[in-house]
Amino acid sequence: MDIRETIKNSLHWRYAVKKFDATRKINSADWEMLKESLRLTPSSYGLQPWKFITVETPELRQKLREVSWNQSQVTDCSHYVVLAYKEKVDAAFIRKNMTKIAQVRQVPLESLAGFEKAIISDIVEGPRSAVIEAWAQRQVYIAMGFLLETAALMGVDSTPMEGLDPNAYDTLLGLKGSGWKTVAAVALGYRHAEDPFLKLTKVRFDDSEVFEVR
Amino acid sequence: MDIRETIKNSLHWRYAVKKFDATRKINSADWEMLKESLRLTPSSYGLQPWKFITVETPELRQKLREVSWNQSQVTDCSHYVVLAYKEKVDAAFIRKNMTKIAQVRQVPLESLAGFEKAIISDIVEGPRSAVIEAWAQRQVYIAMGFLLETAALMGVDSTPMEGLDPNAYDTLLGLKGSGWKTVAAVALGYRHAEDPFLKLTKVRFDDSEVFEVR
Repeated sequence: MDIRETIKNSLHWRYAVKKFDATRKINSADWEMLKESLRLTPSSYGLQPWKFITVETPELRQKLREVSWNQSQVTDCSHYVVLAYKEKVDAAFIRKNMTKIAQVRQVPLESLAGFEKAIISDIVEGPRSAVIEAWAQRQVYIAMGFLLETAALMGVDSTPMEGLDPNAYDTLLGLKGSGWKTVAAVALGYRHAEDPFLKLTKVRFDDSEVFEVR
Repeated sequence: MDIRETIKNSLHWRYAVKKFDATRKINSADWEMLKESLRLTPSSYGLQPWKFITVETPELRQKLREVSWNQSQVTDCSHYVVLAYKEKVDAAFIRKNMTKIAQVRQVPLESLAGFEKAIISDIVEGPRSAVIEAWAQRQVYIAMGFLLETAALMGVDSTPMEGLDPNAYDTLLGLKGSGWKTVAAVALGYRHAEDPFLKLTKVRFDDSEVFEVR
């Protein structure tokens, strides 16, 4: 089967699971690939303003569930990943990125001064600084896209979770004061054979409703 | 090669192309799959608050380039897609979605009244209404993730474009007053053999810098 067919079938196969099979776990090779998809996600200027927090402790999952409209996916999925963003992308965080580039590409940090200055003048000192939280959250959603598509390609089910109290998550996860804040989560695992949503036809607008040409 | 290897290789292969080969065009089968990936992207409540605008007219591409920091990708890529979001997700737009569900799943619209009310009380009348633009933009970024990953899997190059003037785009694309606004764009096509960025090592934080476990 060519890759186009594989992608198409996978994206049609996936849906937001409501009831996970709590007995099934994602194997380590698949999980490593899911993590790698998150890590390799592109972001504006390559800044990667994100943290991905996997919640393993059952008691903590239960507490998170209570602040997630009691949705069963939180406790019943195989891997529960909280997506957090950098609250304030500042000069220090940009420097951390420049240092990483210098290290990986084996170039002097000074050679990146122009690039660093351009980023700072745009998102720290420029007009974008006023909307920097929304900007960082958007970058995290590219990672959500990568995570969901990679999962589907491997036959791993997923549910993007926005119905949660980010502030309560930050408290429970110990993120308060860390500079990182919860924006969403993704439950990963395997659909339960009795998930009532399994049989529902996928609903999407037609091509003519979402595509335009100029 | 198993799917994990394919995904891993594709995500390592991709990078944000700076110089496209203006002579190469994406074939129609690949382009249809790219569109299908956008269309099938999941979104919160399934609301799909997006439009994808492909810009074909060379003169318009040139004008967009002028409000995109003169980046050559705008004019030299094969397919240039502007990602737009629904400025105000209101009761009418939610009704449009409910009507679509009713049609696709062949259920009476009335059977969706509870679901509709829940969505309205959350994002039209609830606290999320204050941040509804950022919310809609985030959904579009899931679609950006799907587009970029699907492109990489098929060996199609891409560049996510945030360095653009959304307001000028809206004017040039005739979006003013339409209820849709530009948030970003993606250039798609094929890397030029002389792209100076082609040889640069990909820079990402290590696992230990982006993953945490609780």
